[in-house]
Amino acid sequence: MSEARRFVTAAEMEVEELPWGPHEWLSRPGLVDAEQLLLVRVHMPPRQAHKFHRHPEMEEIIYVLEGVAEQWVDREKRILGPGEIAHIPKDVVHGTYNIGDSTLRFLAILSPAKITGPPLIDMSEEEPWKSLRPWPPTD
Amino acid sequence: MSEARRFVTAAEMEVEELPWGPHEWLSRPGLVDAEQLLLVRVHMPPRQAHKFHRHPEMEEIIYVLEGVAEQWVDREKRILGPGEIAHIPKDVVHGTYNIGDSTLRFLAILSPAKITGPPLIDMSEEEPWKSLRPWPPTD
Repeated sequence: MSEARRFVTAAEMEVEELPWGPHEWLSRPGLVDAEQLLLVRVHMPPRQAHKFHRHPEMEEIIYVLEGVAEQWVDREKRILGPGEIAHIPKDVVHGTYNIGDSTLRFLAILSPAKITGPPLIDMSEEEPWKSLRPWPPTD
Repeated sequence: MSEARRFVTAAEMEVEELPWGPHEWLSRPGLVDAEQLLLVRVHMPPRQAHKFHRHPEMEEIIYVLEGVAEQWVDREKRILGPGEIAHIPKDVVHGTYNIGDSTLRFLAILSPAKITGPPLIDMSEEEPWKSLRPWPPTD
């Protein structure tokens, strides 16, 4: 694939609208010659969340660019700011909640890029996840 | 490995001094439970470079955080600013040159995290790479 794109700028990235905010795809098959690495920049408005879910075949890193994330990995949570990360092993349940007053911007890095099954399984309506972090917050 | 670290902040990251600038490791085996994903933040001073090299077993993404990179992938170059990326397939020769007046900060994302051979082969003294981008610049 000598013709594959090697650089992705604002002009080339692929934007996808999802319920928890716009996604800007920077690396995925079809955009670049990705075998191992998916990269997407997410812009999550205040009081939005990507509730508990898991990726059966992919390991993930969340890297916060701007704003504040309440990040869960399994039953453990941490407040993450710019330059901080969460590491999520394959198939471990996790979720990202924007508890700040500004847009949360983060990179989601996933590997591998090519899988055979579903990329994402929603767990937010199953216990213990449903009770662990009620959302949206009622306060 | 239920004891593995799931979060990495400034307090936990591992700093490594390399000739082309400090590296802040955010994901690697031993720090987190990484099988697929290496993540390191590089702070490259002006007129520094990570000259042409290749990773025989790893795919890579360079994500620019701050500053300006002259980024090469194979014989193709692009000036990258914040939020822009280069995608480097496994074993493809590439290099990063700070041609700006300020520190270049970028994320290097590599996959997989566990390999058996050398992680990096320097190509900067071999042709055509040696002649393609003389460094340091003489201007």
